[in-house]
Amino acid sequence: MATETQTAEQTSQRLTDATTKASSESIKDRYRRVRELSMRIAAPLSAEDCAIQSMPDASPTRWHLAHTTWFFETFLLKERPGFAPFNPSFERLFNSYYNSVGQPFPRNRRGQISRPGLNETIDYRRHVDDAVTELLSESELSPSQLSVLELGLNHEQQHQELMFTDVKHALASNPLHPIYAEDPFDSTTAPKASPLRWRSSDETIVEVGHDGNGFAYDNEGPRHRELIHPHQMASRCVTNREYLEFIHDGGYRQPEYWLSLGWDAVNQHGWEAPLHWISQNGDWHQFTLSGVRPLVLDEPVCHVSYFEADAFARWSGKRLPTEFEWEHAASGDTTGEIFCDKLLQSGGVVHPRVTGDSDFLGNVWEWTASQYLPYPGYRPVGGALGEYNGKFMCNQFVLRGGSCATSSDHIRLSYRNFFPPDARWQFAGIRLAQ
Amino acid sequence: MATETQTAEQTSQRLTDATTKASSESIKDRYRRVRELSMRIAAPLSAEDCAIQSMPDASPTRWHLAHTTWFFETFLLKERPGFAPFNPSFERLFNSYYNSVGQPFPRNRRGQISRPGLNETIDYRRHVDDAVTELLSESELSPSQLSVLELGLNHEQQHQELMFTDVKHALASNPLHPIYAEDPFDSTTAPKASPLRWRSSDETIVEVGHDGNGFAYDNEGPRHRELIHPHQMASRCVTNREYLEFIHDGGYRQPEYWLSLGWDAVNQHGWEAPLHWISQNGDWHQFTLSGVRPLVLDEPVCHVSYFEADAFARWSGKRLPTEFEWEHAASGDTTGEIFCDKLLQSGGVVHPRVTGDSDFLGNVWEWTASQYLPYPGYRPVGGALGEYNGKFMCNQFVLRGGSCATSSDHIRLSYRNFFPPDARWQFAGIRLAQ
Amino acid sequence: MATETQTAEQTSQRLTDATTKASSESIKDRYRRVRELSMRIAAPLSAEDCAIQSMPDASPTRWHLAHTTWFFETFLLKERPGFAPFNPSFERLFNSYYNSVGQPFPRNRRGQISRPGLNETIDYRRHVDDAVTELLSESELSPSQLSVLELGLNHEQQHQELMFTDVKHALASNPLHPIYAEDPFDSTTAPKASPLRWRSSDETIVEVGHDGNGFAYDNEGPRHRELIHPHQMASRCVTNREYLEFIHDGGYRQPEYWLSLGWDAVNQHGWEAPLHWISQNGDWHQFTLSGVRPLVLDEPVCHVSYFEADAFARWSGKRLPTEFEWEHAASGDTTGEIFCDKLLQSGGVVHPRVTGDSDFLGNVWEWTASQYLPYPGYRPVGGALGEYNGKFMCNQFVLRGGSCATSSDHIRLSYRNFFPPDARWQFAGIRLAQ
Amino acid sequence: MATETQTAEQTSQRLTDATTKASSESIKDRYRRVRELSMRIAAPLSAEDCAIQSMPDASPTRWHLAHTTWFFETFLLKERPGFAPFNPSFERLFNSYYNSVGQPFPRNRRGQISRPGLNETIDYRRHVDDAVTELLSESELSPSQLSVLELGLNHEQQHQELMFTDVKHALASNPLHPIYAEDPFDSTTAPKASPLRWRSSDETIVEVGHDGNGFAYDNEGPRHRELIHPHQMASRCVTNREYLEFIHDGGYRQPEYWLSLGWDAVNQHGWEAPLHWISQNGDWHQFTLSGVRPLVLDEPVCHVSYFEADAFARWSGKRLPTEFEWEHAASGDTTGEIFCDKLLQSGGVVHPRVTGDSDFLGNVWEWTASQYLPYPGYRPVGGALGEYNGKFMCNQFVLRGGSCATSSDHIRLSYRNFFPPDARWQFAGIRLAQ
Repeated sequence: MATETQTAEQTSQRLTDATTKASSESIKDRYRRVRELSMRIAAPLSAEDCAIQSMPDASPTRWHLAHTTWFFETFLLKERPGFAPFNPSFERLFNSYYNSVGQPFPRNRRGQISRPGLNETIDYRRHVDDAVTELLSESELSPSQLSVLELGLNHEQQHQELMFTDVKHALASNPLHPIYAEDPFDSTTAPKASPLRWRSSDETIVEVGHDGNGFAYDNEGPRHRELIHPHQMASRCVTNREYLEFIHDGGYRQPEYWLSLGWDAVNQHGWEAPLHWISQNGDWHQFTLSGVRPLVLDEPVCHVSYFEADAFARWSGKRLPTEFEWEHAASGDTTGEIFCDKLLQSGGVVHPRVTGDSDFLGNVWEWTASQYLPYPGYRPVGGALGEYNGKFMCNQFVLRGGSCATSSDHIRLSYRNFFPPDARWQFAGIRLAQ
Repeated sequence: MATETQTAEQTSQRLTDATTKASSESIKDRYRRVRELSMRIAAPLSAEDCAIQSMPDASPTRWHLAHTTWFFETFLLKERPGFAPFNPSFERLFNSYYNSVGQPFPRNRRGQISRPGLNETIDYRRHVDDAVTELLSESELSPSQLSVLELGLNHEQQHQELMFTDVKHALASNPLHPIYAEDPFDSTTAPKASPLRWRSSDETIVEVGHDGNGFAYDNEGPRHRELIHPHQMASRCVTNREYLEFIHDGGYRQPEYWLSLGWDAVNQHGWEAPLHWISQNGDWHQFTLSGVRPLVLDEPVCHVSYFEADAFARWSGKRLPTEFEWEHAASGDTTGEIFCDKLLQSGGVVHPRVTGDSDFLGNVWEWTASQYLPYPGYRPVGGALGEYNGKFMCNQFVLRGGSCATSSDHIRLSYRNFFPPDARWQFAGIRLAQ
Repeated sequence: MATETQTAEQTSQRLTDATTKASSESIKDRYRRVRELSMRIAAPLSAEDCAIQSMPDASPTRWHLAHTTWFFETFLLKERPGFAPFNPSFERLFNSYYNSVGQPFPRNRRGQISRPGLNETIDYRRHVDDAVTELLSESELSPSQLSVLELGLNHEQQHQELMFTDVKHALASNPLHPIYAEDPFDSTTAPKASPLRWRSSDETIVEVGHDGNGFAYDNEGPRHRELIHPHQMASRCVTNREYLEFIHDGGYRQPEYWLSLGWDAVNQHGWEAPLHWISQNGDWHQFTLSGVRPLVLDEPVCHVSYFEADAFARWSGKRLPTEFEWEHAASGDTTGEIFCDKLLQSGGVVHPRVTGDSDFLGNVWEWTASQYLPYPGYRPVGGALGEYNGKFMCNQFVLRGGSCATSSDHIRLSYRNFFPPDARWQFAGIRLAQ
Repeated sequence: MATETQTAEQTSQRLTDATTKASSESIKDRYRRVRELSMRIAAPLSAEDCAIQSMPDASPTRWHLAHTTWFFETFLLKERPGFAPFNPSFERLFNSYYNSVGQPFPRNRRGQISRPGLNETIDYRRHVDDAVTELLSESELSPSQLSVLELGLNHEQQHQELMFTDVKHALASNPLHPIYAEDPFDSTTAPKASPLRWRSSDETIVEVGHDGNGFAYDNEGPRHRELIHPHQMASRCVTNREYLEFIHDGGYRQPEYWLSLGWDAVNQHGWEAPLHWISQNGDWHQFTLSGVRPLVLDEPVCHVSYFEADAFARWSGKRLPTEFEWEHAASGDTTGEIFCDKLLQSGGVVHPRVTGDSDFLGNVWEWTASQYLPYPGYRPVGGALGEYNGKFMCNQFVLRGGSCATSSDHIRLSYRNFFPPDARWQFAGIRLAQ
């Protein structure tokens, strides 16, 4: 296969070709639209909301706003003649993990830095936006510049999802349970979940991974053949109602349902339910971005770790699908409606919804049984951007399909998200296979 | 001695009598003056500056503003008929360590709470200030109310000092080294330190502790007799110049100068100089509240731990004074000028100054060789306020004299400050004895 | 596929059939032979050598001797009428991780228990051996008993390997570098490593996993089809000489060769070379079971973590093979000579040797790029023994092929060993693919 | 005072003079007697019992045997012409904390070292004993040699007490509860504790500290004057019966009785009773060196931390005495009977006994309210031996009087033992004052 000897330059070329052809929206409009969404997500938050970090894995909103800007400054603007940084200290301060760029500021101390404040951060964004816009107006971008720009926009969309999950975690840590935004949603009129059905698949060889049309991360390729074993896939995700049965049946108290590391996590953290579930006088409630409200039983279960997804599956006598089974099963799926951009547009809050059958995309990320490993022939691109994905391919599990916090133009069937098996603060749920 | 059987009520009585007689300033004016100083300290800070917590021992400025207010609300207003809390959740959120009042919010997570924000916190202060002012206008306060009010004001003054040291630590943690306030001070015109002289004292029995005139904390009493052994006391504190000799002589690399726990701390934290010292191209600079500036050699050394003070003394062939030697030696001292209220009034920044001989009070706290233990006959007052001081009498060392961050009306010769031996973020320096 | 609905009973049946047919050696002889090897491994050790635990992941030799005995007592003897335990406390003391049997004694405290001592432990072994021998003489074992017996013997062989690696770690921790056994081996006459060649494979579908003839662990099945992508496999493992080039080229100082978690491990532990390498006056030596000796450059590199194997591969521009590529490539390999039973028999010490081309089995375990996950249709057996393998299928990597510390009758092409990616104390080396 | 300018040489002189005059027993006999007691303490233990370390603060018996020998080798024999070490590696291996001698082997890893084994350790002792005996026969020892010899014997006696408490902790950690030695003691015939009486003292100035007659540690001097405040001292220590009342009254569940750090310790470790107390079916038992037996209510409470002693005192409405009040009160006391040498001689086991009134010395150490600080004019001796005591004068509390594990010729009224406030594994109890 050609991809096995593919070089970094070729990858860059491939991404670029795809990008320039993909959309009727001008790149300038797209840049503005994506960048504005970040500001819109931050809009309901106070300066202090944007400053805090409620756990080492989460980052302050203000840091997200600055780091996504730093990406464009560092990888797109810095190489231009006459470039002057907005503030030379920002290079270190807003580097996330690119060792090749320099020693990043320690991740777990991002919430201990009060300056630059929110206003100065917005100035920083504006400054870089002006420079990028000027660049886009001035001249035709080189393929490698276009490729970096596209990567930067997708990178920002990833961070937009983290802005939601991180700030949700931060607000939830506050005993006052502050509200991010009011939600007009009336849970009493929510529809019922559709009955669970099983879709069979025979053994087959399928092509998986990204086909090179349009943008994709390097970890989605090379496209290659995988052998799918005979299996059945659930028609929809597990609901809160089904998950409650697992809890009531003592799921969190029986080691036999759990991986050994999972059982350690249950005991160490005292897990008794998904994250953001709150027991009040014997009734389960959920902390949401619009405050605490009674658990809606037909909604898909959310904010579970891989360990919980796996334990639930074992308790059910089923298993989680592999990422290739998932990609194969989802292949007929059309994009759903439960995405952050669509929810915001309709005045809704970012939260999972009861959906029907065809819900592989959006709503909740779906944990797969696949650990996050490189595809055959995978090679990271050279230079600092090569640190983007490859170096995290260890001890993480793949999630597929996007969530209610993902932008609808940021998801693909080949998209591989990944988190450690104890991570719970993402909008992650469960689809079963057998 | 009567004090041995003294009851909590008697203590309260004693404090009150003292208070009401102590000052020509009305209690209402005094309340306003002290409360306003807190707001003045916070004035140069952004909402984000007030939100962050740069280490578990420090607290956000906003927390200090709220907690000092909580103190008046909880101990003065709550018992009044018709009392309604500003926000019932604040009881837990802004409790520091009073187990009798309820389970405090975890100290090391104070920087992870974004609400109430700065503005709401200021509203909270105003609300409580109005209620207290109303109380003061309405009626004669009972002795016990007066006593709590006085304690609350002293409590707030203590926190004012912590606001300076905590925010200094927070700003210093930021690679941008932000400036709290510009300082007109010109270090090149600083005077020279006076020559070190030794003042001898023969064996004698002295009365130490507070005499009951005016306010004092319970840990300053009962006044009692102590035997002072013959000794000599240094006429001034150790200077940066003298401390540099210790560094140059390998002081931080030789275990024989250090207590065993101190040597552990040196190695664990990689100490090579006092906190806030910065080596730039071979020259020592200091991070101050007005930014980074060259070390002023004649200023008293500051931001050292007990371990460093003790190691320096051992290297010098001297020792630290006991708290009773200190109180005896300082007894002729008049209040100095290097206090936070006086510095702010004259437009200066809170930072130690080169001083002359008579500097027992103000400038820098002075570590003593005395571990923090109760005086003979000491009994904490009853109830929640009994948790104020007594329960910390273990593994801490006494500091005496106040600092440039202390209010001049908050210090006394009998005042016992205390910190663990590895604490460095206070304005603490060294006076030798032999 | 039938295996997908396979029940625990069927698994048990399958193992049993295989076992009874597999060998001309009587089960009684085999039991004696395997049990005696454990005693032989412990023979050169003092009572104290057998007592210590040099890290939480390792166990004292005495614990291995007792735990392997506990396995037979608990799973084979306990169900017999009239059974009386040798000592009722041993049930908890020598349980490793079977939560269904009861709360195990904490793993990291195994080295803090001095009793039962070595002599009593040997009595315990003898007592159980007598009872098992009696059982074997008395009557035909049931299939399920035979299955447990076979599992117990394989379990003991696994622990025999750990006895070598754990005691090697313990002796290496001692600054005296004690010798386990003298070795007649003369490194100056060691042969040269054969030149590295690459063997190509086209895309193909292969059957992998155990075929049911003879004993296998449950994690080796079900046998199933896997798609192999085109690749090339190295003809032999990486040598110390080749690994030294990586070190000299700054391999341990450049983050770009490392997985993110691997780079953390390098920095946290200060790794600069494989475990048991010792730099003396600029020359590399190795601590071996026969003491410290100069590094033999043609021997396969050993005692590396997955992180180091992966970093070396990235530095080489190659990668590690998947476990299926490995199983496919090794399929023509005949059993080698570098196994613990054969080495002991010839008076040699357990240590890797320079070998020729056909060395997939024995010598050093080979890290694969495959995280340890269940095969399609895998189901753990029911009951306590179901905890044997399945619950560890998370955040570990598969190693294949056995090592110089493995018994030659304990290895198979389908054998899946697994360790976390930072484990270094096993005899684990590196084979490259591309 | 002369002592303020006292030099190390003078200290050495003083100790020596005292030593040579103190006893009719020849120094050679005394050396043999003390050294033999160590072997006698180890006699009931297996090689494995002597190897293990059940917590970082404890050491293996074998390490005690070797370290006390190392002391004589390093400080007495090493300076002799023609000296050859028994094993050069032992210098580092058996150094406890003398940084001046070299980097000690990490304390918390002493239980991970299996060699030298018990037999080789005994050889080491014999080797050094022969050399010391030869030295004693050959020639008159110099004053400084005599001083070191005396220090070495006292040092060994200190470690003999630790051998008891460390091995008790180790055996107690074993679920089998092994017995160190059978005890003929019949608890049902134990006498009743005498009624508690209070002995009053007026304010007075007393001389405290060692007077220079006979051996003393440097931390017991200089002898100096202290002011004693009026107080009352309990006639005997607190009994198990009295301590049980505290437990039954919720003592371990009420924060108001506890120092802040003490309350943290209670919660962190889950303390509910003194160390070695075991609740069986609602009845309290005690693990002793002769196994588990019912709690004897009239015995003094033992194995409590300073935190527990202090909390008990606060609950009682009393306090702990200062070390000077204790020394003053004990001054008329004659040596008691409950010491390790006397108990062993009479065939008893090392364990506290019900005693009468005059029990300041022996039985249980008594926590005082005094933190461990230097006396006025204290200076450590020069050189490595100067590290003996002084460097630990921080965050520890003084205990007085010796215990059932102390040798009767190793205790003095001026003897200052010291432990951190959370230490519980010593034979430490409580005497009240008010």
